[in-house]
This record gives sequence, C-alpha cells and structure tokens, in this order.
Amino acid sequence: MELSLEIRKNLSSEWFLNLQSAICKEFEGYEIEFSKRKKTLPKRFKKKIWSKKNSDEGGGQYFILKNGYVFDQVGVNFSKVQGEFPKNFISRIPGAMNDPYYWASGISVVAHMRNPKIPAIHFNTRFIITSKSWFGGGMDVTPSYKDNKEKFLVHKNLKEICKKNNESYRNYKKWCDKYFYIKHRNEPRGIGGIFFDYLNSNWSKNFKFVRELGICFLSTSREIIYNKISTNWNKNQKNRQYEKRKRYVEFNLLYDRGTKFGLNTGGNADAIFMSLPPLK
Amino acid sequence: MELSLEIRKNLSSEWFLNLQSAICKEFEGYEIEFSKRKKTLPKRFKKKIWSKKNSDEGGGQYFILKNGYVFDQVGVNFSKVQGEFPKNFISRIPGAMNDPYYWASGISVVAHMRNPKIPAIHFNTRFIITSKSWFGGGMDVTPSYKDNKEKFLVHKNLKEICKKNNESYRNYKKWCDKYFYIKHRNEPRGIGGIFFDYLNSNWSKNFKFVRELGICFLSTSREIIYNKISTNWNKNQKNRQYEKRKRYVEFNLLYDRGTKFGLNTGGNADAIFMSLPPLK
Repeated sequence: MELSLEIRKNLSSEWFLNLQSAICKEFEGYEIEFSKRKKTLPKRFKKKIWSKKNSDEGGGQYFILKNGYVFDQVGVNFSKVQGEFPKNFISRIPGAMNDPYYWASGISVVAHMRNPKIPAIHFNTRFIITSKSWFGGGMDVTPSYKDNKEKFLVHKNLKEICKKNNESYRNYKKWCDKYFYIKHRNEPRGIGGIFFDYLNSNWSKNFKFVRELGICFLSTSREIIYNKISTNWNKNQKNRQYEKRKRYVEFNLLYDRGTKFGLNTGGNADAIFMSLPPLK
Repeated sequence: MELSLEIRKNLSSEWFLNLQSAICKEFEGYEIEFSKRKKTLPKRFKKKIWSKKNSDEGGGQYFILKNGYVFDQVGVNFSKVQGEFPKNFISRIPGAMNDPYYWASGISVVAHMRNPKIPAIHFNTRFIITSKSWFGGGMDVTPSYKDNKEKFLVHKNLKEICKKNNESYRNYKKWCDKYFYIKHRNEPRGIGGIFFDYLNSNWSKNFKFVRELGICFLSTSREIIYNKISTNWNKNQKNRQYEKRKRYVEFNLLYDRGTKFGLNTGGNADAIFMSLPPLK
C-alpha cells in the first residue's frame, strides 16, 4: 500500500526529530564520561527554537554544545519548513519549475572536536517535496591529520550500510568526493564519505536507508572518538586544526548547497551557520 | 595631454605598491610603540609573494601581522593581474562582453583589532581595465560597540576627502550602506563609510581621489586606534567581538564581490581570504 504524502511527511520529520534527540543524548554522554577525568562539570547542549519570519512556514530547533572535553563545538539542527522558492532559485530544484511550493524536513550535524587528531564529522539527511519528492543526505569526515586506519573504518561502515540497502556505495562515494571539493584550493575538504540526492526509487526502502545511515553515523562517530580521545596533542597540532577549519568555513559559505538552500528559503541564520567551526 | 593606458597602469600599480609599504610601516610603528608597555618584542609583518598559476598573468604580495598588541590580525594585499574572465563572469563586468581580457591592480587592507572596543577597519582601492577602465574602492568601519563620536569622526573625514575632490560623499555613503548589508540577518555589517566603483570621469582627477583616500585611511585609522588603545576591556567584550567577526566572515564569503573576483580570476586563495578574521 502506498503511503500518502501527509504520512510520509510525518514519518520522516518525526524520525529526524527523534534522531536529533538520540544524537544529543549520546554526545552529552561522552562529555559526562570524559569530563570526569578533569573533575569538572560536563558541558551540556543548549536548545534554540526558531521559526521562519512567516511562522506559518515552519521552523526548527537546534542544539549546540560548546567548549566541551570532546567537542569544541557540535551542533545538531532539525528543521521542518515550507513555502515558495524565490524565482532565482527555482531552476536549480527538480519539480519546482511550474510550482514553486516546497516542503522540507531534515537533520544536520557538524561536530568539531577539541582533540585535533579526531576529525570533524558531518552528517545530514532530508526529505524534500516539490511537485516531486526525494530523500538526500550523506556523511563525511574531515581530519587534520592523515590516518589510513580511520579512513578505512569510515568507508567500511558506509559501504556496509549501502550494500545492506542495495544502494551504490561507489556512486555515492564519488558524488561525495565531487561535492566536497574545495575548487579554489584544488583540494578535497576531507577524506570523503557518501553523498546522495534525488533518491526516490521506493519510499519505504529509501526511508529505511536514511534511518540506518543515521544509526551508522552514531556508531561510526563513537568509534572514531573513542579511538583517539585519550591521545595527547600539542599546540602545533591544534594550530593545524585551526587551519583546516578555515577551509571548512570557505567551503560551507562559498559552495555548500545546504547553506544556499537555507538562506534562499528564509531559514534561521544562526541555525544555518551552526555548521561553522567556532571562531575561538 | 592624455596619459596612455600603459602609463596609467604603471602609475596606479606603483601607487598601490608604495601605499602598501607605507601602511605596513605605519602599523608596525604602532606595534613597536605599544609593545614597549608589555616589555615584549613587537610583532612584525610577514611578507608573502604569490603569482597566478599561469605566472605570465601576474600576481601580488601580501603582508600579514598576527597576534600583535594592537592587531589580532591585519593583512595588506597588493595585486597586479591580467588574464581573461571566465565566461560565467563576463556579464557582470562592464566592457567584458565582447573581449574577456582584463588587467587589474589594487590594494586592500583589513585590520582586526585586539581591543574589542576598537572597530575593524577595511580599505580598498583598485584600477581595472577591460574594453573600459575605471577606479573603484572605499573604506568602512565595523565596531563591536556603538560609539557615536567615532562614527562621526569616520564620516567627517570621508566627507571632507570627497568634498575636496568633488566626489559625492552622499552617494558613496549610500552605496556603502547598500553594499555592506548582511541580507540574511537584516543588519548592516558596520557603521558604513564610502564605496565607489566604475569611476572614470577624468583619469588624473580620479587617481588623485584614490590616492587621497589612501592617505585618509591611514590618518583615520591612526585616530581611531589612538583614541582607544589604552582603554580596558574584558572577556565578555572580547566574546562580543568574536560574534561580530563571525558576521564579517559570513559577509565576505557569501556576498563580497572582491572575493568572487579573486576566486573567478584564479587569484591566490590565502591572499583573498586574508580579510577574514583569525580563527583563534
């Protein structure tokens, strides 16, 4: 039986909202566990709720944790919005040419770590409706230091999740490499991962893949963090991480489609820029 | 007698180069003067020379001083480049439609101060040649804290220099306000200044205005800095400055035409992003 569009909206947005809560709980758990070492109080997520200027058009909530033992900054954003695309944006969105109305819900996470040996991790999944409808998303990793074992781990986990869901790891990996390329520096943003968009072959199957990718993000992040949280680092290594973060900023503001989507649909600026690394 | 285009190129680019040297000398002087208070060695500018990938197409040199007593970071960039505009860029540049060849030289300065009560200051002038040719530039100021006296000082100096050169302060001020507006936040970047472009009424007269604006930048910066360099500040005020700097980044990467020009003409990424505030 085919699910109606209304049911699909509810199921997908409820999933994104629940996943947001699960991620925050898990990440706060790390802060609680590791801050014991410092004998300080653990840092907590702060919640911020926002709505579009026209509040009939939805909004979202993001959680942000700063200056932790594990995370310099991690933001977890959920949004559920609707409206009409501005004219200059329509041609870039499938199915928006004749009717500019859209509905969109999604979750995005960017984690910038305190230990410069632990990579920044990005994850995002979304469900978008115009006159068409599709899922998109992905996960990718940006280390400041090369680590082949870690790279292997990330890609192995992503490959498995794709295989299990009959999705093409190979294509999604290529797409990721292409998307997260910093053109003006002729270098990739990080070591890649997967990126997919316009996924609308079979809703229930696609939704399952999106859910499992969320779980995969959680378990992979955990592995990456635990592998290195106890390794030492020095000021030079921290400086290298700062340099890498600058390029993260360049990418996100110059090229990222999610940023452009947010800004073009009247999203909340602070929620959109939550992905940027902290300035200090 | 009309000066040939070759002579105009030489005169303008030599001026920009000499001004770069004068600015660096002046700013280093502040560091020398004030670092005595701390009894530490003054920070110095570091020089970096860059050329376009195709080195026949010119390049430039920038000076950067970091972690000083006066400046958290100040960059002074000079460039002299030529080449052909990429196709997708042509329609935005006057006189490039039929012939994509360009020559351009300019200087740009962005100073991010250590004392959060002292505003960030930006200055830029340039001479550009396509099938047309023109000067552009401006100066504007971005405080973290409102200060009407300072605002008055900046605009008084700019008004004077415009008046002296028969240029319209009123129009250039409006242009500046419009240009440095952060749309997605519905707020101006700072307290404005002047901005002008496509200035080609009379070459010698226009060049004089451009030169005098450079001198005005130097003397106004000096006044602004000396007025406040001895005032105390605390951590909260520094945090407010960090917040303001984030918006500076947003503006520069999302909207700034100079950034787009640099990236679209194969400029040096580090020189282009020199204007961004330090990440730590």
